[in-house]
Amino acid sequence: MKRIKLVIAYDGTNYSGWQVQPGKTTIEGVVNKALSELLNEEITVIGASRTDAGVHAKGNVAVFDTNSPIPPEKICYAVNRYLPWDIRVLSSMEVPADFHPRKVNSKKTYEYKIMNREIAIPTERLYSYFIYYNMDIKAMQEAAKYLIGEHDFKSFCSVKTQVSETVRTIYSLNVDKYGEMIKITVTGNGFLYNMVRIIAGTLIEVGRGLKTPEDMDKILKGRNRRLAGPTAPAHGLTLVGIEYDMDAFLLE
Amino acid sequence: MKRIKLVIAYDGTNYSGWQVQPGKTTIEGVVNKALSELLNEEITVIGASRTDAGVHAKGNVAVFDTNSPIPPEKICYAVNRYLPWDIRVLSSMEVPADFHPRKVNSKKTYEYKIMNREIAIPTERLYSYFIYYNMDIKAMQEAAKYLIGEHDFKSFCSVKTQVSETVRTIYSLNVDKYGEMIKITVTGNGFLYNMVRIIAGTLIEVGRGLKTPEDMDKILKGRNRRLAGPTAPAHGLTLVGIEYDMDAFLLE
Repeated sequence: MKRIKLVIAYDGTNYSGWQVQPGKTTIEGVVNKALSELLNEEITVIGASRTDAGVHAKGNVAVFDTNSPIPPEKICYAVNRYLPWDIRVLSSMEVPADFHPRKVNSKKTYEYKIMNREIAIPTERLYSYFIYYNMDIKAMQEAAKYLIGEHDFKSFCSVKTQVSETVRTIYSLNVDKYGEMIKITVTGNGFLYNMVRIIAGTLIEVGRGLKTPEDMDKILKGRNRRLAGPTAPAHGLTLVGIEYDMDAFLLE
Repeated sequence: MKRIKLVIAYDGTNYSGWQVQPGKTTIEGVVNKALSELLNEEITVIGASRTDAGVHAKGNVAVFDTNSPIPPEKICYAVNRYLPWDIRVLSSMEVPADFHPRKVNSKKTYEYKIMNREIAIPTERLYSYFIYYNMDIKAMQEAAKYLIGEHDFKSFCSVKTQVSETVRTIYSLNVDKYGEMIKITVTGNGFLYNMVRIIAGTLIEVGRGLKTPEDMDKILKGRNRRLAGPTAPAHGLTLVGIEYDMDAFLLE
Protein backbone atom coordinates (compact mmCIF):
# COMPACT_ATOMS: atom_id res chain seq x y z
CA MET A 1 0.00 0.00 0.00
CA LYS A 2 1.35 3.39 -1.01
CA ARG A 3 0.15 6.83 0.07
CA ILE A 4 0.09 9.24 -2.88
CA LYS A 5 0.09 13.03 -2.52
CA LEU A 6 -1.56 15.02 -5.31
CA VAL A 7 -1.26 18.74 -6.04
CA ILE A 8 -4.56 19.81 -7.58
CA ALA A 9 -5.49 22.97 -9.50
CA TYR A 10 -9.07 23.91 -10.34
CA ASP A 11 -11.41 26.57 -11.58
CA GLY A 12 -14.01 26.64 -8.81
CA THR A 13 -16.65 28.43 -10.93
CA ASN A 14 -18.76 25.36 -11.65
CA TYR A 15 -18.38 23.52 -8.35
CA SER A 16 -20.06 23.53 -4.94
CA GLY A 17 -16.63 23.72 -3.32
CA TRP A 18 -14.14 21.01 -2.43
CA GLN A 19 -15.98 18.81 0.01
CA VAL A 20 -18.32 16.00 -1.05
CA GLN A 21 -21.99 16.92 -0.45
CA PRO A 22 -24.99 14.81 -1.41
CA GLY A 23 -26.58 15.91 -4.68
CA LYS A 24 -23.85 18.49 -5.47
CA THR A 25 -20.91 18.47 -7.85
CA THR A 26 -17.75 19.03 -5.84
CA ILE A 27 -14.03 18.94 -6.65
CA GLU A 28 -13.43 16.15 -4.13
CA GLY A 29 -16.27 14.09 -5.58
CA VAL A 30 -15.04 14.46 -9.15
CA VAL A 31 -11.43 13.64 -8.13
CA ASN A 32 -12.58 10.56 -6.19
CA LYS A 33 -14.54 9.34 -9.21
CA ALA A 34 -11.65 9.91 -11.64
CA LEU A 35 -9.13 8.09 -9.41
CA SER A 36 -11.57 5.24 -8.81
CA GLU A 37 -12.09 4.82 -12.56
CA LEU A 38 -8.38 5.00 -13.33
CA LEU A 39 -7.31 2.59 -10.58
CA ASN A 40 -10.38 0.38 -10.69
CA GLU A 41 -10.76 0.54 -6.92
CA GLU A 42 -12.82 2.72 -4.58
CA ILE A 43 -10.71 5.78 -3.82
CA THR A 44 -11.52 8.47 -1.24
CA VAL A 45 -9.00 11.28 -1.02
CA ILE A 46 -8.19 13.32 2.09
CA GLY A 47 -7.99 16.97 1.11
CA ALA A 48 -5.82 19.64 2.70
CA SER A 49 -8.10 22.62 2.21
CA ARG A 50 -11.87 22.34 1.94
CA THR A 51 -12.29 25.38 -0.27
CA ASP A 52 -15.72 27.04 -0.49
CA ALA A 53 -17.99 27.05 -3.53
CA GLY A 54 -16.50 29.27 -6.24
CA VAL A 55 -12.98 29.43 -4.75
CA HIS A 56 -10.16 28.48 -7.15
CA ALA A 57 -6.91 26.62 -6.53
CA LYS A 58 -3.51 26.46 -8.15
CA GLY A 59 -2.17 24.07 -5.53
CA ASN A 60 -4.57 22.32 -3.20
CA VAL A 61 -3.27 19.00 -1.85
CA ALA A 62 -4.93 15.62 -1.34
CA VAL A 63 -3.72 12.14 -0.49
CA PHE A 64 -5.05 8.62 -1.03
CA ASP A 65 -3.85 5.06 -0.59
CA THR A 66 -3.50 2.54 -3.38
CA ASN A 67 -1.85 -0.72 -4.38
CA SER A 68 -1.69 0.37 -8.01
CA PRO A 69 1.51 -0.54 -9.92
CA ILE A 70 1.40 2.83 -11.76
CA PRO A 71 4.58 4.73 -10.77
CA PRO A 72 3.44 7.42 -8.28
CA GLU A 73 4.80 10.33 -10.31
CA LYS A 74 2.90 9.12 -13.41
CA ILE A 75 -0.51 9.08 -11.73
CA CYS A 76 -1.06 12.80 -12.42
CA TYR A 77 -0.85 12.31 -16.19
CA ALA A 78 -3.07 9.23 -16.09
CA VAL A 79 -5.81 10.69 -13.89
CA ASN A 80 -6.04 13.91 -15.88
CA ARG A 81 -7.52 11.85 -18.73
CA TYR A 82 -10.48 11.07 -16.43
CA LEU A 83 -10.92 14.65 -15.21
CA PRO A 84 -12.74 17.60 -16.79
CA TRP A 85 -10.51 20.47 -17.99
CA ASP A 86 -11.46 22.68 -15.05
CA ILE A 87 -9.66 20.27 -12.68
CA ARG A 88 -6.03 19.23 -13.25
CA VAL A 89 -3.71 17.17 -11.07
CA LEU A 90 -0.40 19.01 -11.44
CA SER A 91 1.83 16.46 -9.73
CA SER A 92 1.76 13.18 -7.83
CA MET A 93 4.32 11.57 -5.53
CA GLU A 94 4.58 8.91 -2.87
CA VAL A 95 4.61 10.15 0.74
CA PRO A 96 4.97 8.30 4.07
CA ALA A 97 1.86 6.32 5.02
CA ASP A 98 1.17 8.55 8.04
CA PHE A 99 1.31 11.81 6.09
CA HIS A 100 -2.02 13.58 6.67
CA PRO A 101 -2.48 16.82 4.69
CA ARG A 102 -4.42 18.59 7.47
CA LYS A 103 -2.29 17.38 10.39
CA VAL A 104 1.27 18.01 9.22
CA ASN A 105 2.56 21.55 9.81
CA SER A 106 2.27 23.63 6.68
CA LYS A 107 2.33 27.10 5.21
CA LYS A 108 -0.68 27.92 3.07
CA THR A 109 -0.69 30.78 0.60
CA TYR A 110 -3.87 32.39 -0.70
CA GLU A 111 -4.33 35.21 -3.20
CA TYR A 112 -7.35 37.50 -3.33
CA LYS A 113 -7.69 39.45 -6.59
CA ILE A 114 -9.60 42.72 -6.95
CA MET A 115 -10.24 44.16 -10.41
CA ASN A 116 -10.21 47.88 -9.67
CA ARG A 117 -11.39 49.92 -12.63
CA GLU A 118 -14.44 51.82 -13.78
CA ILE A 119 -15.96 49.03 -15.87
CA ALA A 120 -15.14 45.32 -15.49
CA ILE A 121 -13.12 43.38 -18.07
CA PRO A 122 -15.24 40.29 -18.88
CA THR A 123 -12.33 37.83 -19.21
CA GLU A 124 -11.22 38.61 -15.63
CA ARG A 125 -14.68 38.42 -14.06
CA LEU A 126 -14.54 34.79 -12.93
CA TYR A 127 -11.22 35.11 -11.09
CA SER A 128 -11.36 38.53 -9.44
CA TYR A 129 -13.80 40.68 -7.48
CA PHE A 130 -14.76 43.80 -9.41
CA ILE A 131 -14.72 47.07 -7.41
CA TYR A 132 -15.18 50.42 -9.13
CA TYR A 133 -14.52 52.61 -6.07
CA ASN A 134 -11.16 54.31 -5.82
CA MET A 135 -8.99 52.23 -3.52
CA ASP A 136 -6.27 53.61 -1.25
CA ILE A 137 -3.58 50.96 -1.64
CA LYS A 138 -1.25 52.57 0.90
CA ALA A 139 -3.95 52.46 3.56
CA MET A 140 -4.59 48.80 2.75
CA GLN A 141 -0.86 48.06 3.07
CA GLU A 142 -0.75 49.88 6.42
CA ALA A 143 -3.78 47.96 7.65
CA ALA A 144 -2.31 44.63 6.54
CA LYS A 145 0.72 45.08 8.81
CA TYR A 146 -1.48 44.80 11.92
CA LEU A 147 -2.45 41.26 11.00
CA ILE A 148 1.04 39.85 10.48
CA GLY A 149 2.27 37.60 13.28
CA GLU A 150 0.53 35.38 15.83
CA HIS A 151 -2.90 36.73 16.75
CA ASP A 152 -6.31 35.63 17.86
CA PHE A 153 -8.25 35.95 14.60
CA LYS A 154 -11.69 35.37 16.11
CA SER A 155 -12.97 38.63 14.53
CA PHE A 156 -11.90 37.28 11.13
CA CYS A 157 -13.67 33.94 11.43
CA SER A 158 -17.18 33.03 10.29
CA VAL A 159 -19.50 32.48 13.24
CA LYS A 160 -20.38 29.19 11.52
CA THR A 161 -16.97 27.78 12.44
CA GLN A 162 -16.72 24.58 14.45
CA VAL A 163 -13.27 25.29 15.88
CA SER A 164 -12.77 26.96 19.26
CA GLU A 165 -9.05 27.71 19.01
CA THR A 166 -8.78 30.88 16.92
CA VAL A 167 -5.10 31.79 17.30
CA ARG A 168 -3.21 31.59 14.00
CA THR A 169 0.05 32.95 12.60
CA ILE A 170 0.23 35.03 9.45
CA TYR A 171 3.79 35.02 8.07
CA SER A 172 3.18 37.58 5.35
CA LEU A 173 0.29 39.67 4.08
CA ASN A 174 0.95 41.83 1.04
CA VAL A 175 -1.21 44.21 -0.94
CA ASP A 176 0.17 44.92 -4.41
CA LYS A 177 -1.21 46.67 -7.45
CA TYR A 178 -0.47 45.37 -10.96
CA GLY A 179 -2.10 47.69 -13.46
CA GLU A 180 -5.79 47.61 -12.59
CA MET A 181 -5.54 44.45 -10.48
CA ILE A 182 -5.01 44.56 -6.71
CA LYS A 183 -3.59 41.35 -5.26
CA ILE A 184 -3.81 40.51 -1.57
CA THR A 185 -1.40 37.64 -0.90
CA VAL A 186 -1.36 35.98 2.49
CA THR A 187 0.73 33.13 3.88
CA GLY A 188 -0.03 31.55 7.24
CA ASN A 189 0.17 28.37 9.25
CA GLY A 190 -3.56 27.85 8.93
CA PHE A 191 -6.71 29.81 8.29
CA LEU A 192 -10.05 29.87 10.06
CA TYR A 193 -13.35 29.45 8.23
CA ASN A 194 -13.70 32.34 5.72
CA MET A 195 -10.66 34.05 7.30
CA VAL A 196 -8.97 35.10 4.05
CA ARG A 197 -12.24 36.39 2.58
CA ILE A 198 -13.00 38.37 5.77
CA ILE A 199 -9.46 39.81 5.76
CA ALA A 200 -9.99 40.78 2.11
CA GLY A 201 -13.40 42.28 2.88
CA THR A 202 -11.94 44.29 5.77
CA LEU A 203 -8.94 45.52 3.75
CA ILE A 204 -11.37 46.57 1.00
CA GLU A 205 -13.25 48.70 3.55
CA VAL A 206 -9.94 50.30 4.51
CA GLY A 207 -9.16 50.86 0.81
CA ARG A 208 -12.52 52.59 0.37
CA GLY A 209 -11.93 54.78 3.45
CA LEU A 210 -14.74 53.18 5.47
CA LYS A 211 -12.20 51.99 8.04
CA THR A 212 -8.74 53.26 9.00
CA PRO A 213 -5.59 51.11 9.16
CA GLU A 214 -5.56 51.69 12.94
CA ASP A 215 -9.03 50.10 13.20
CA MET A 216 -7.39 46.72 12.51
CA ASP A 217 -5.91 46.72 15.99
CA LYS A 218 -9.33 47.27 17.59
CA ILE A 219 -10.91 44.62 15.36
CA LEU A 220 -8.29 42.03 16.36
CA LYS A 221 -8.57 42.85 20.06
CA GLY A 222 -12.37 42.90 20.01
CA ARG A 223 -12.55 39.18 19.08
CA ASN A 224 -15.96 39.76 17.48
CA ARG A 225 -16.87 38.91 13.88
CA ARG A 226 -19.12 41.97 13.67
CA LEU A 227 -16.18 44.35 14.01
CA ALA A 228 -14.50 43.16 10.79
CA GLY A 229 -15.66 43.91 7.25
CA PRO A 230 -17.90 41.70 5.11
CA THR A 231 -16.82 38.34 3.69
CA ALA A 232 -15.49 39.16 0.21
CA PRO A 233 -16.98 37.04 -2.62
CA ALA A 234 -15.55 33.55 -3.17
CA HIS A 235 -14.62 33.95 -6.84
CA GLY A 236 -11.81 36.45 -6.05
CA LEU A 237 -9.99 33.85 -3.96
CA THR A 238 -7.36 31.34 -5.12
CA LEU A 239 -5.50 28.84 -2.96
CA VAL A 240 -2.03 29.30 -4.42
CA GLY A 241 -0.21 26.50 -2.66
CA ILE A 242 0.62 24.55 0.47
CA GLU A 243 4.17 23.96 1.63
CA TYR A 244 4.65 21.07 4.07
CA ASP A 245 7.34 20.55 6.62
CA MET A 246 8.39 17.16 5.26
CA ASP A 247 11.67 17.04 7.21
CA ALA A 248 10.24 14.97 10.03
CA PHE A 249 9.05 12.37 7.54
CA LEU A 250 12.20 12.30 5.49
CA LEU A 251 14.25 11.44 8.60
CA GLU A 252 12.31 8.26 9.25
CA MET B 1 -29.38 62.05 -34.92
CA LYS B 2 -26.05 61.21 -33.33
CA ARG B 3 -23.62 58.44 -34.25
CA ILE B 4 -22.21 56.77 -31.14
CA LYS B 5 -19.01 54.73 -31.09
CA LEU B 6 -18.75 51.96 -28.48
CA VAL B 7 -15.65 50.10 -27.32
CA ILE B 8 -16.78 46.62 -26.35
CA ALA B 9 -15.03 43.89 -24.34
CA TYR B 10 -16.28 40.32 -24.10
CA ASP B 11 -15.54 36.80 -23.07
CA GLY B 12 -16.33 34.89 -26.27
CA THR B 13 -16.62 31.50 -24.54
CA ASN B 14 -20.41 31.35 -24.53
CA TYR B 15 -21.11 33.04 -27.88
CA SER B 16 -21.33 32.00 -31.52
CA GLY B 17 -19.07 34.90 -32.44
CA TRP B 18 -19.83 38.56 -33.10
CA GLN B 19 -22.17 38.50 -36.07
CA VAL B 20 -25.92 37.99 -35.79
CA GLN B 21 -26.97 34.53 -36.97
CA PRO B 22 -30.47 33.09 -36.83
CA GLY B 23 -31.02 30.81 -33.84
CA LYS B 24 -27.61 31.56 -32.29
CA THR B 25 -26.54 33.76 -29.39
CA THR B 26 -24.03 36.29 -30.68
CA ILE B 27 -22.31 39.34 -29.18
CA GLU B 28 -23.82 41.63 -31.82
CA GLY B 29 -27.30 40.25 -31.16
CA VAL B 30 -27.03 40.71 -27.40
CA VAL B 31 -25.62 44.25 -27.78
CA ASN B 32 -28.41 45.20 -30.21
CA LYS B 33 -31.02 43.92 -27.78
CA ALA B 34 -29.49 45.75 -24.78
CA LEU B 35 -29.25 49.07 -26.66
CA SER B 36 -32.79 48.68 -28.02
CA GLU B 37 -34.12 48.07 -24.49
CA LEU B 38 -32.18 50.99 -23.03
CA LEU B 39 -33.08 53.49 -25.74
CA ASN B 40 -36.55 52.16 -26.46
CA GLU B 41 -35.91 52.14 -30.20
CA GLU B 42 -34.74 49.48 -32.65
CA ILE B 43 -30.92 49.62 -32.67
CA THR B 44 -28.64 47.73 -35.06
CA VAL B 45 -24.94 48.30 -34.49
CA ILE B 46 -22.22 48.19 -37.17
CA GLY B 47 -19.28 46.24 -35.78
CA ALA B 48 -15.62 46.75 -36.65
CA SER B 49 -14.44 43.17 -36.30
CA ARG B 50 -16.71 40.16 -36.78
CA THR B 51 -14.82 37.92 -34.39
CA ASP B 52 -15.29 34.14 -34.66
CA ALA B 53 -17.05 31.92 -32.13
CA GLY B 54 -14.93 31.64 -28.97
CA VAL B 55 -12.69 34.64 -29.73
CA HIS B 56 -12.46 37.25 -26.95
CA ALA B 57 -12.18 41.03 -27.11
CA LYS B 58 -10.83 43.77 -24.91
CA GLY B 59 -11.59 46.47 -27.45
CA ASN B 60 -13.87 45.69 -30.36
CA VAL B 61 -15.69 48.72 -31.78
CA ALA B 62 -19.26 49.26 -32.94
CA VAL B 63 -21.34 52.28 -33.91
CA PHE B 64 -25.07 53.05 -34.00
CA ASP B 65 -27.31 56.05 -34.56
CA THR B 66 -29.75 57.42 -32.03
CA ASN B 67 -31.79 60.46 -31.08
CA SER B 68 -31.49 59.63 -27.40
CA PRO B 69 -30.93 62.56 -25.02
CA ILE B 70 -28.54 60.45 -22.89
CA PRO B 71 -25.11 62.15 -23.04
CA PRO B 72 -22.99 59.99 -25.41
CA GLU B 73 -20.25 59.30 -22.86
CA LYS B 74 -22.84 58.06 -20.32
CA ILE B 75 -24.35 55.44 -22.64
CA CYS B 76 -21.68 52.86 -21.68
CA TYR B 77 -22.71 52.91 -18.01
CA ALA B 78 -26.39 52.77 -18.87
CA VAL B 79 -26.21 49.94 -21.40
CA ASN B 80 -24.05 47.76 -19.15
CA ARG B 81 -27.06 47.37 -16.87
CA TYR B 82 -28.82 45.60 -19.75
CA LEU B 83 -25.86 43.39 -20.65
CA PRO B 84 -24.67 40.08 -19.17
CA TRP B 85 -21.34 40.22 -17.28
CA ASP B 86 -19.44 38.53 -20.09
CA ILE B 87 -20.06 41.59 -22.31
CA ARG B 88 -19.13 45.13 -21.17
CA VAL B 89 -19.20 48.40 -23.05
CA LEU B 90 -16.00 50.09 -21.87
CA SER B 91 -16.63 53.53 -23.37
CA SER B 92 -19.03 55.48 -25.57
CA MET B 93 -18.58 58.73 -27.48
CA GLU B 94 -20.12 60.68 -30.31
CA VAL B 95 -18.38 60.41 -33.69
CA PRO B 96 -19.09 62.07 -37.06
CA ALA B 97 -22.19 60.69 -38.81
CA ASP B 98 -20.11 59.23 -41.65
CA PHE B 99 -17.72 57.32 -39.38
CA HIS B 100 -17.89 53.64 -40.41
CA PRO B 101 -15.82 51.29 -38.23
CA ARG B 102 -14.84 49.00 -41.12
CA LYS B 103 -14.17 51.73 -43.69
CA VAL B 104 -12.02 54.21 -41.80
CA ASN B 105 -8.28 53.41 -41.76
CA SER B 106 -7.31 51.69 -38.56
CA LYS B 107 -4.68 49.68 -36.74
CA LYS B 108 -5.99 46.51 -35.15
CA THR B 109 -4.10 44.66 -32.46
CA TYR B 110 -4.68 41.00 -31.62
CA GLU B 111 -3.06 38.82 -28.99
CA TYR B 112 -2.77 35.04 -29.19
CA LYS B 113 -1.94 33.33 -25.89
CA ILE B 114 -0.31 29.93 -25.56
CA MET B 115 -0.12 28.24 -22.14
CA ASN B 116 3.13 26.31 -22.48
CA ARG B 117 3.64 23.90 -19.60
CA GLU B 118 3.38 20.19 -18.88
CA ILE B 119 -0.12 20.26 -17.41
CA ALA B 120 -2.69 23.00 -18.01
CA ILE B 121 -3.74 25.48 -15.30
CA PRO B 122 -7.57 25.32 -15.25
CA THR B 123 -8.14 29.05 -14.63
CA GLU B 124 -6.23 29.91 -17.84
CA ARG B 125 -7.90 27.32 -20.05
CA LEU B 126 -10.63 29.54 -21.50
CA TYR B 127 -8.27 32.31 -22.62
CA SER B 128 -5.18 30.51 -23.90
CA TYR B 129 -4.29 27.50 -26.06
CA PHE B 130 -2.59 24.79 -24.04
CA ILE B 131 0.53 23.25 -25.63
CA TYR B 132 2.74 20.85 -23.70
CA TYR B 133 5.48 20.52 -26.33
CA ASN B 134 8.70 22.40 -25.74
CA MET B 135 8.56 25.59 -27.79
CA ASP B 136 11.58 27.31 -29.33
CA ILE B 137 10.70 30.96 -28.72
CA LYS B 138 13.75 32.29 -30.58
CA ALA B 139 12.77 30.37 -33.71
CA MET B 140 9.22 31.77 -33.42
CA GLN B 141 10.63 35.29 -33.08
CA GLU B 142 12.84 34.74 -36.15
CA ALA B 143 9.89 33.42 -38.14
CA ALA B 144 7.68 36.35 -37.11
CA LYS B 145 10.09 38.85 -38.70
CA TYR B 146 9.31 37.50 -42.18
CA LEU B 147 5.67 38.57 -41.85
CA ILE B 148 6.24 42.17 -40.82
CA GLY B 149 5.55 44.72 -43.55
CA GLU B 150 3.29 44.75 -46.60
CA HIS B 151 2.78 41.26 -48.01
CA ASP B 152 0.28 39.17 -49.87
CA PHE B 153 -1.08 37.03 -47.03
CA LYS B 154 -3.10 34.65 -49.23
CA SER B 155 -1.36 31.64 -47.59
CA PHE B 156 -2.55 32.92 -44.20
CA CYS B 157 -6.19 33.31 -45.20
CA SER B 158 -8.99 30.78 -44.86
CA VAL B 159 -10.12 29.48 -48.25
CA LYS B 160 -13.64 30.37 -47.08
CA THR B 161 -12.84 34.08 -47.47
CA GLN B 162 -14.97 36.26 -49.71
CA VAL B 163 -12.29 38.88 -50.37
CA SER B 164 -10.00 38.73 -53.41
CA GLU B 165 -7.47 41.37 -52.35
CA THR B 166 -5.12 39.62 -49.94
CA VAL B 167 -2.36 42.21 -49.49
CA ARG B 168 -2.16 43.54 -45.93
CA THR B 169 0.41 45.36 -43.80
CA ILE B 170 1.62 44.03 -40.46
CA TYR B 171 3.21 46.84 -38.44
CA SER B 172 4.50 44.66 -35.64
CA LEU B 173 4.45 40.97 -34.72
CA ASN B 174 6.02 40.01 -31.41
CA VAL B 175 6.47 36.70 -29.66
CA ASP B 176 7.12 37.09 -25.92
CA LYS B 177 7.27 34.67 -23.04
CA TYR B 178 5.91 35.62 -19.61
CA GLY B 179 6.50 32.73 -17.24
CA GLU B 180 4.67 29.81 -18.83
CA MET B 181 2.58 31.98 -21.15
CA ILE B 182 3.67 32.75 -24.71
CA LYS B 183 2.04 35.85 -26.20
CA ILE B 184 1.93 36.52 -29.92
CA THR B 185 0.95 40.17 -30.40
CA VAL B 186 0.23 41.45 -33.89
CA THR B 187 -0.77 44.90 -35.13
CA GLY B 188 -1.83 45.50 -38.71
CA ASN B 189 -3.98 47.62 -40.98
CA GLY B 190 -6.43 44.79 -41.44
CA PHE B 191 -6.57 41.02 -41.21
CA LEU B 192 -7.95 38.40 -43.58
CA TYR B 193 -10.37 35.68 -42.49
CA ASN B 194 -8.64 33.56 -39.80
CA MET B 195 -5.33 35.32 -40.57
CA VAL B 196 -4.20 35.79 -36.95
CA ARG B 197 -5.12 32.21 -36.03
CA ILE B 198 -3.26 30.84 -39.08
CA ILE B 199 -0.21 32.99 -38.25
CA ALA B 200 -0.38 31.62 -34.67
CA GLY B 201 -0.78 28.04 -35.94
CA THR B 202 2.21 28.46 -38.24
CA LEU B 203 4.41 30.06 -35.58
CA ILE B 204 3.48 27.19 -33.25
CA GLU B 205 4.75 24.72 -35.88
CA VAL B 206 8.00 26.69 -36.01
CA GLY B 207 8.16 26.63 -32.20
CA ARG B 208 7.77 22.85 -32.23
CA GLY B 209 10.47 22.45 -34.88
CA LEU B 210 8.06 21.22 -37.56
CA LYS B 211 8.88 24.25 -39.72
CA THR B 212 11.94 26.53 -39.86
CA PRO B 213 11.84 30.34 -39.64
CA GLU B 214 13.04 30.43 -43.25
CA ASP B 215 9.97 28.45 -44.34
CA MET B 216 7.91 31.60 -43.70
CA ASP B 217 9.35 33.19 -46.83
CA LYS B 218 8.31 30.22 -48.98
CA ILE B 219 4.86 30.13 -47.39
CA LEU B 220 4.27 33.83 -48.12
CA LYS B 221 5.52 33.53 -51.72
CA GLY B 222 3.55 30.34 -52.38
CA ARG B 223 0.20 32.15 -51.89
CA ASN B 224 -1.43 28.84 -50.93
CA ARG B 225 -3.29 28.16 -47.69
CA ARG B 226 -1.97 24.59 -47.58
CA LEU B 227 1.60 25.78 -47.11
CA ALA B 228 0.88 27.48 -43.77
CA GLY B 229 0.21 25.73 -40.46
CA PRO B 230 -3.21 24.87 -39.03
CA THR B 231 -5.69 27.46 -37.78
CA ALA B 232 -4.97 27.74 -34.05
CA PRO B 233 -8.06 27.37 -31.80
CA ALA B 234 -10.31 30.41 -31.36
CA HIS B 235 -10.19 30.58 -27.55
CA GLY B 236 -6.49 31.63 -27.51
CA LEU B 237 -7.30 34.79 -29.48
CA THR B 238 -8.22 38.22 -28.11
CA LEU B 239 -8.90 41.37 -30.10
CA VAL B 240 -6.98 43.84 -27.95
CA GLY B 241 -8.01 47.07 -29.61
CA ILE B 242 -8.61 49.16 -32.72
CA GLU B 243 -7.01 52.54 -33.23
CA TYR B 244 -8.67 54.79 -35.80
CA ASP B 245 -7.21 57.59 -37.82
CA MET B 246 -9.72 60.18 -36.61
CA ASP B 247 -7.72 63.19 -37.85
CA ALA B 248 -9.62 63.47 -41.11
CA PHE B 249 -12.89 63.60 -39.20
CA LEU B 250 -11.72 66.04 -36.58
CA LEU B 251 -10.73 68.56 -39.26
CA GLU B 252 -14.25 68.74 -40.66
